[in-house]
Amino acid sequence: MTLRPEFALIERIQKAAGGSSRVPLGIGDDAAGLACRDDRETLVATDMLLDGVHFVVEECGPYWAGRKALAVNLSDLAAMGGRCMASFVSIAIPRNWNAREADELMRGVLELAAKWDCPVAGGDTNSWDGRLVINVAVVGESIEATSIRRAGAQVGDVIVVSGALGGSIYGRHLMFEPRLDVALQLLKLARPNSMIDLSDGLSSDLWHILKASHVGAVLEQKLIPVHEDVRHHADVVNLSSQPAFAHALHDGEDFELLFTLSAAQWETLRQNWKLPIALTKIGMIVSEEACRIVSETGESKELVPGGYVHRFG
Amino acid sequence: MTLRPEFALIERIQKAAGGSSRVPLGIGDDAAGLACRDDRETLVATDMLLDGVHFVVEECGPYWAGRKALAVNLSDLAAMGGRCMASFVSIAIPRNWNAREADELMRGVLELAAKWDCPVAGGDTNSWDGRLVINVAVVGESIEATSIRRAGAQVGDVIVVSGALGGSIYGRHLMFEPRLDVALQLLKLARPNSMIDLSDGLSSDLWHILKASHVGAVLEQKLIPVHEDVRHHADVVNLSSQPAFAHALHDGEDFELLFTLSAAQWETLRQNWKLPIALTKIGMIVSEEACRIVSETGESKELVPGGYVHRFG
Repeated sequence: MTLRPEFALIERIQKAAGGSSRVPLGIGDDAAGLACRDDRETLVATDMLLDGVHFVVEECGPYWAGRKALAVNLSDLAAMGGRCMASFVSIAIPRNWNAREADELMRGVLELAAKWDCPVAGGDTNSWDGRLVINVAVVGESIEATSIRRAGAQVGDVIVVSGALGGSIYGRHLMFEPRLDVALQLLKLARPNSMIDLSDGLSSDLWHILKASHVGAVLEQKLIPVHEDVRHHADVVNLSSQPAFAHALHDGEDFELLFTLSAAQWETLRQNWKLPIALTKIGMIVSEEACRIVSETGESKELVPGGYVHRFG
Repeated sequence: MTLRPEFALIERIQKAAGGSSRVPLGIGDDAAGLACRDDRETLVATDMLLDGVHFVVEECGPYWAGRKALAVNLSDLAAMGGRCMASFVSIAIPRNWNAREADELMRGVLELAAKWDCPVAGGDTNSWDGRLVINVAVVGESIEATSIRRAGAQVGDVIVVSGALGGSIYGRHLMFEPRLDVALQLLKLARPNSMIDLSDGLSSDLWHILKASHVGAVLEQKLIPVHEDVRHHADVVNLSSQPAFAHALHDGEDFELLFTLSAAQWETLRQNWKLPIALTKIGMIVSEEACRIVSETGESKELVPGGYVHRFG
């Protein structure tokens, strides 16, 4: 690594990073300075994305790798009932990359950062002999006085999911839109008792809520919204060996919001919901600490967390 | 990568992470929740450390790699006149590591985090085929209402450095203590006009202050505190080709504090300084936007930033 190219990249990022009244001190000092509110919870999420594990940069290109690294963190903020303030981007660039590839990566970050008013306020750039690594940390704050957590699901709560699930591997795992607008609109209309974003897959992420809340769930299979990507790629996903709804349950990286709220709050929400992203009731929270799914023929089975299996590398 | 070992590591970190009243929500949700003050600047620093670039883990072991990754960030907070609140640790672990090695790495992080009351409040763990990567982000706040920045040095300011410089390669670049206590004590006694931590080397880091403040400096060579490591390892560093003070000027990774303040403030500070870490006046801020160094024989030369040359990899 030499000093000059690294510093030039930082300067290009600095010029493009944008600003915000919440970030009085951005890139260029030993740390960034943020103006936080003491009547809000300051939220911090971080994720490290690795070439060959979370994406294959030779296939998707630097732009989508960079975009995904920010997007997964914005999805985490949305899942807390939060909005963003600033992002921090650390990258280890393969030594054989040229400036254009590094710029493309940062364009993926910066365009999404601009869209959601989450200026890049700091980070770290290195080059090395290894594969691309991107770590993003985002700082945000709860929209209301406190955040929405995984713990808090109440017996009798309705379980709701945004969007449609499954088959993200065909592109959505890179190109998804973090559901910050869903979280904001949701909190205007109703207060979820618990929330998470779907990164590991519905069956695993619901299990995180159940475990944290010490409750169980009953899902109705016919209500699970299956994304059209699953059927569209039916030849590839081999629907004969695994039915479409199983992809919706276990595929992972949907980055939709999964939340629970009282039946009364759900009724209010359902009647007033105006965003084009569907909200679907998929089941109920129950006291028995297990997760069951009821098939279209009325058969009830235990739903085992599918776990997250890395598809690459 | 499999789910189970990764989650077990997270659970072990969670148990050992400690807590703080400033971190109402630590590890275990989509994001951490911090209680920030609106009468302080919230500070965020982040650094990505790579095996073969910032350390060689086969030589130093996982403990010191982990410790360094947090320490460099705490040094950044100190340089802002800040104190810490929480740290966020993302790691990409080589697939052939065992649990003991991962635990050793986290012990290096957690022991330093406990010492400085900077609980690990979140992060991300992955394993992969590449070399070890550690990214740490720290969140802190300014000790006073605002932070001390690189910009702000005034013509007539005294330039002061903590500790002694040079030869960090012989161990201090891994084992240094971040100067959070120096920053705290300093702000009790005086208010620096500008400050930075010495990561790239005195000649480079001073240049950052000068550039940001639109001023120049004159250093006195005989005042530069040369660390005993330089002379102790004189056989290795080849003092015949490069004098000892040149190592103090250019070596880098000293992680001491460099700051400027008025002559009156320096007098107050000097008379009341009680910490065992020396503060040394090394020069003055001048209006001419250049950096000059005056030798022991009175010869004045321009001091060129030595730049940071990675020693490994």
